[in-house]
Amino acid sequence: MRVLLKLAYDGSNYNGFQRQSGKQKNKTAIQNILEQHISNIYNLDIEVIGASRTDAGVHAMSQYVVYDIEKNHLPIDKIKIILNNKLPKDIRIIESVEVDDNFHPRYNSSIKTYEYKVCVGDFINPLYRNFMLHYPKKVNVQKMNEACKLIVGTHDFIGFSNKSEVKNTVRTIYECNVSEDNEILTFYITGDGFLYNMVRIIVATLLEIGIEKKEIYDISRILEQKNRKLASPTISGVGLCLQHIQYK
Amino acid sequence: MRVLLKLAYDGSNYNGFQRQSGKQKNKTAIQNILEQHISNIYNLDIEVIGASRTDAGVHAMSQYVVYDIEKNHLPIDKIKIILNNKLPKDIRIIESVEVDDNFHPRYNSSIKTYEYKVCVGDFINPLYRNFMLHYPKKVNVQKMNEACKLIVGTHDFIGFSNKSEVKNTVRTIYECNVSEDNEILTFYITGDGFLYNMVRIIVATLLEIGIEKKEIYDISRILEQKNRKLASPTISGVGLCLQHIQYK
Repeated sequence: MRVLLKLAYDGSNYNGFQRQSGKQKNKTAIQNILEQHISNIYNLDIEVIGASRTDAGVHAMSQYVVYDIEKNHLPIDKIKIILNNKLPKDIRIIESVEVDDNFHPRYNSSIKTYEYKVCVGDFINPLYRNFMLHYPKKVNVQKMNEACKLIVGTHDFIGFSNKSEVKNTVRTIYECNVSEDNEILTFYITGDGFLYNMVRIIVATLLEIGIEKKEIYDISRILEQKNRKLASPTISGVGLCLQHIQYK
Repeated sequence: MRVLLKLAYDGSNYNGFQRQSGKQKNKTAIQNILEQHISNIYNLDIEVIGASRTDAGVHAMSQYVVYDIEKNHLPIDKIKIILNNKLPKDIRIIESVEVDDNFHPRYNSSIKTYEYKVCVGDFINPLYRNFMLHYPKKVNVQKMNEACKLIVGTHDFIGFSNKSEVKNTVRTIYECNVSEDNEILTFYITGDGFLYNMVRIIVATLLEIGIEKKEIYDISRILEQKNRKLASPTISGVGLCLQHIQYK
């Protein structure tokens, strides 16, 4: 049988979601921690498949993983409770359910939503420092929202991604906007998939439009010319959170 | 001259505000960290006096400290910038100003405001785990607010405090209430001073009234009988934050 776990995590203390072999930067991956604890409860080596390979420092409110188990002797909803008792407090299982053996969290088509939080005030609340980028500059939110409109739609987003082995770089973005509340910006972006570092590069470019270092039409240029160098340098993953995944 | 610093901190990684001699629990105090960095900038041993001795794990959005320096060669507002460059990211200086030599952050009369945050949902967002108590129970907010009204006023709060050497245990509470938003309770309490662990014991007792383990009138009994045993056990400091200090 195939078990689906829905989980949330604070990614601050991990080197991203994807399994690491050997130690890197003295931090391990969330996948390693999950596999270790799931293996312990069955006394078997269990591997999990995740929906999204979130980067180092990136958070998730709704990540999904599956694993297969021949003989599951545990009530399916108890798996959540057992794991939450054992896992570190920065990784929480929200739900454990049985799914069809063909269900694949990455290949089954889905809509993913990310949020990126930025504090633009001079002072960042130290309690928020691990889930917001501190960017103490005057930004033009209206201009950024005009630029967001150009992101929406089906485009080749290769200019907004760092190198990876993905062949098809066309993605559809359904919604993209930014709101401000009390000197905190929330970038909201939802689409059928995202390339490597794509959200971080889009937000970086939108911020440079916000401080008028770039122009709104630069978004169209990057999409048309498919040129990574025209977009802004990748910003930190600290403000990024995988907020939601909806399977079709 | 006397320098006043206003600061904010995430107390999660510290053993409270007050200076520790020697290591305790492998964690140091916020005062130690401050003194170390302030001493470094002047190349002199500097001691600071804090407004409030927040406990281990307790946060502050507005703590005050003073220190004396004979010859300050630095522009007063630059001290903030220099310290923020050196201090760990969980301690932030909000303001550095000169004050009268007689100003004492603890003895000058002031109004202090604390907030205590509690997540009453089954699931606590892992990003919030260091600044909210997880208390996944059904609570009656209206009942707790009725009880809050009995806290307001001038009373001997010894029944709501753990042992300390303070002689005068009478304090005046100006406001006390609790609000709920999205399964998160915020207890708000403001007064002219607080005894050792007083906010944590008051909130613990209010929560037990909320789950109907205690009655509203128990507040009056604890105040009248001045009996610590009638109040609830001290809860964790994780949800507590020194929100504001207003000097008269």
